[in-house]
Amino acid sequence: MSLIVQKFGGSSVADAESIKRVAKRIVETRKAGNDVVVAVSAMGDTTDELLDLASEVSPIPAPRELDMLLSAGERISMALLAMAIKSMGHEARSFTGSQAGMITDAQHGAARIVDVTPVRLREALDDGAIVIVAGFQGFNRDTRDITTLGRGGSDTTAVALAAALDADVCEIYTDVDGVFTSDPRVVKKARKLDRVTSEEMLELAASGAKVLHIRAVEYARRHGVTLHVRSSFNNSEGTIVYDPSRLPEGAAVEESVIAGVAIDLSEAKITVVGVPDKPGVAAKIFKIVAGTNANVDVIVQNVSAAATGRTDISFTLPKADGERALTALATAQEAIGFESLQYDDQIGKLSLVGNAMRSATGVSARLFEALYEAGINIEMISTSEIRISVVTRADSVQAAAQAVHTAFELDGDEDAIVHAGTGR
Amino acid sequence: MSLIVQKFGGSSVADAESIKRVAKRIVETRKAGNDVVVAVSAMGDTTDELLDLASEVSPIPAPRELDMLLSAGERISMALLAMAIKSMGHEARSFTGSQAGMITDAQHGAARIVDVTPVRLREALDDGAIVIVAGFQGFNRDTRDITTLGRGGSDTTAVALAAALDADVCEIYTDVDGVFTSDPRVVKKARKLDRVTSEEMLELAASGAKVLHIRAVEYARRHGVTLHVRSSFNNSEGTIVYDPSRLPEGAAVEESVIAGVAIDLSEAKITVVGVPDKPGVAAKIFKIVAGTNANVDVIVQNVSAAATGRTDISFTLPKADGERALTALATAQEAIGFESLQYDDQIGKLSLVGNAMRSATGVSARLFEALYEAGINIEMISTSEIRISVVTRADSVQAAAQAVHTAFELDGDEDAIVHAGTGR
Repeated sequence: MSLIVQKFGGSSVADAESIKRVAKRIVETRKAGNDVVVAVSAMGDTTDELLDLASEVSPIPAPRELDMLLSAGERISMALLAMAIKSMGHEARSFTGSQAGMITDAQHGAARIVDVTPVRLREALDDGAIVIVAGFQGFNRDTRDITTLGRGGSDTTAVALAAALDADVCEIYTDVDGVFTSDPRVVKKARKLDRVTSEEMLELAASGAKVLHIRAVEYARRHGVTLHVRSSFNNSEGTIVYDPSRLPEGAAVEESVIAGVAIDLSEAKITVVGVPDKPGVAAKIFKIVAGTNANVDVIVQNVSAAATGRTDISFTLPKADGERALTALATAQEAIGFESLQYDDQIGKLSLVGNAMRSATGVSARLFEALYEAGINIEMISTSEIRISVVTRADSVQAAAQAVHTAFELDGDEDAIVHAGTGR
Repeated sequence: MSLIVQKFGGSSVADAESIKRVAKRIVETRKAGNDVVVAVSAMGDTTDELLDLASEVSPIPAPRELDMLLSAGERISMALLAMAIKSMGHEARSFTGSQAGMITDAQHGAARIVDVTPVRLREALDDGAIVIVAGFQGFNRDTRDITTLGRGGSDTTAVALAAALDADVCEIYTDVDGVFTSDPRVVKKARKLDRVTSEEMLELAASGAKVLHIRAVEYARRHGVTLHVRSSFNNSEGTIVYDPSRLPEGAAVEESVIAGVAIDLSEAKITVVGVPDKPGVAAKIFKIVAGTNANVDVIVQNVSAAATGRTDISFTLPKADGERALTALATAQEAIGFESLQYDDQIGKLSLVGNAMRSATGVSARLFEALYEAGINIEMISTSEIRISVVTRADSVQAAAQAVHTAFELDGDEDAIVHAGTGR
């Protein structure tokens, strides 16, 4: 008998009908002879509605109370889901984050899981019950208070449960068929990947692929949890996210050079113009930016102009962090000694990710050539072991992705089907 | 420093504005130098909305999951209330039923409180915080599951907290100014009582007065908790519900003969016609009715007709229980040997309640005379030590209440003000 963890997001349980559909799916998994543990998010817009209420009663809601409030959302969806399953004749029991033993630190709104003690879940499984667990929430042992995990919380709950219960697989249900070689809304011939390594998935998620939260992928990788990203709208196989080093001897699979092309339009570029080209200045700049909690991504420093002894430093960061970083830098203009600041939110980033890039040669040459042939100007470049990212004009990214996707022979035979819903 | 427990029902926290108003009221109590513990119900129609959702996913929702679901309601209101208080610059902490140590038996949907261990509440009070507790919910130690207390649950939570924390008073906020000598919507000159004994309050609540739930009154009486029933719309003093035997020596207050006139239109009458007049038949009948969990109130057995050796037995019960009881009796017709069943849901009950009735004489004579003069026919009579109830036609109850209210000199000088809202 296998143990399968399944995660359903808010759009999968948006109303009573959806909840019954999800219940049916869970029951089918159970009937196929598996133990089933489910992590579920709050229904549809519940979390947003609760946040609205909070802002109506308090301009800055107290974090402890906000977590108490938001945790009501999954309590509703999980109880309804358990009821729906029970009314189909199968035993089911719902558990809150604290009942499930999801122990976190005390950072309200962005708590990290520090331990999982699923004693009650094991008891329920031993009793033959389907276990439903509230996603997104936990419990701090010292304060004895309810916490929430923040963005990507429910995915992380599912992965943490899979790790703690030593599940065979953690299925992440979403509104797309799996992980694609690129965003199907941008690249028509994007192809669903049957498999992707967790390292590639990490780079794809970090480069703008939204299907999985990077935090959940990291947790899965660290704990050796195999993920199966699949659609909640059909029964097709999705994408397996696996760690090749954990495969049994002889089970190694042939890896393609390139897993996918991710694009990201959420970043802006700040250029610090006329920076004195001497040691320690870059450190000063990025210490100031880090102090605003801005998440710096690509950094490029131009070659110094010999005549002036000054250079320009450009970096990208999420648009949402832009204003804070600019304000902090402007305040420190004299201390750093730069000439001016430029802000550009019309950039796009394209990232090519592939595990086999490590050994394969000529990948970057082929990438640059494809972009050149498509007439696209590269503004910044950044690389990791298995990724090459280029920054271009925002309105060039779509054409760039199409060109690169074709150049690396990723195109599928048919156009990808794009679903209307949005994942959460 | 006094410790005051305050209870606010769902209509008092129906939206963000109401929550802020309640928060202000709590803060005022705190500023007056009191420790404050608040029991709060779910917002407005939340509980009904959750029940609707439950019935959409399951015809008979599993009781454990239903309690899990419903408990989300108070979690929302209490967190919002705590936030609102904190944003007014006062420390506040919200606690679920289980966090507050509200230990119950395992009967989901109608759990009884078996113990209250408010360790965390005491800690929070010691830290100078205003404590907000979820009404209506508790926790069973054996199953470690969330329970709800059923009807009147939030009032009972407040009273149980007051008892466990040895509070000076438990204030029950409602949409009327206090306990009245009769229902102000029926008897125009109904007068607010300044004080009423807990025994009288029990009889009034049992006789149809809706301002307090009988269960909360019983709990208060058993644990010597003084209640203060008052309006959440103004600052007027309401009605003190107290136990005279617990008053300090010499503090005895003059008691009036009659506390009030309660009316109840929620019952129906079943008459079992032509019952063999022999020992054990009545026992048979009421055993069958009890088996349907019907709540039998007034019982009358006619004098047996000598010629036939048969008699009629009539009893009243909540209309909601009527069909079940009728069906059960009809099924047992042969076993009991009665001739037919009559069902009458057009009855009303008027109850006169007063602690001093014990010693005062002529109360029933005066009651019957007042009804006779008003031309009202009495169908059934039932008495307790401090109560006389009469059953009349439903459409006579209003006139009966007016007449009796006047006859016992309960009329106030002015018409009572009736608020639009309904209590819960």
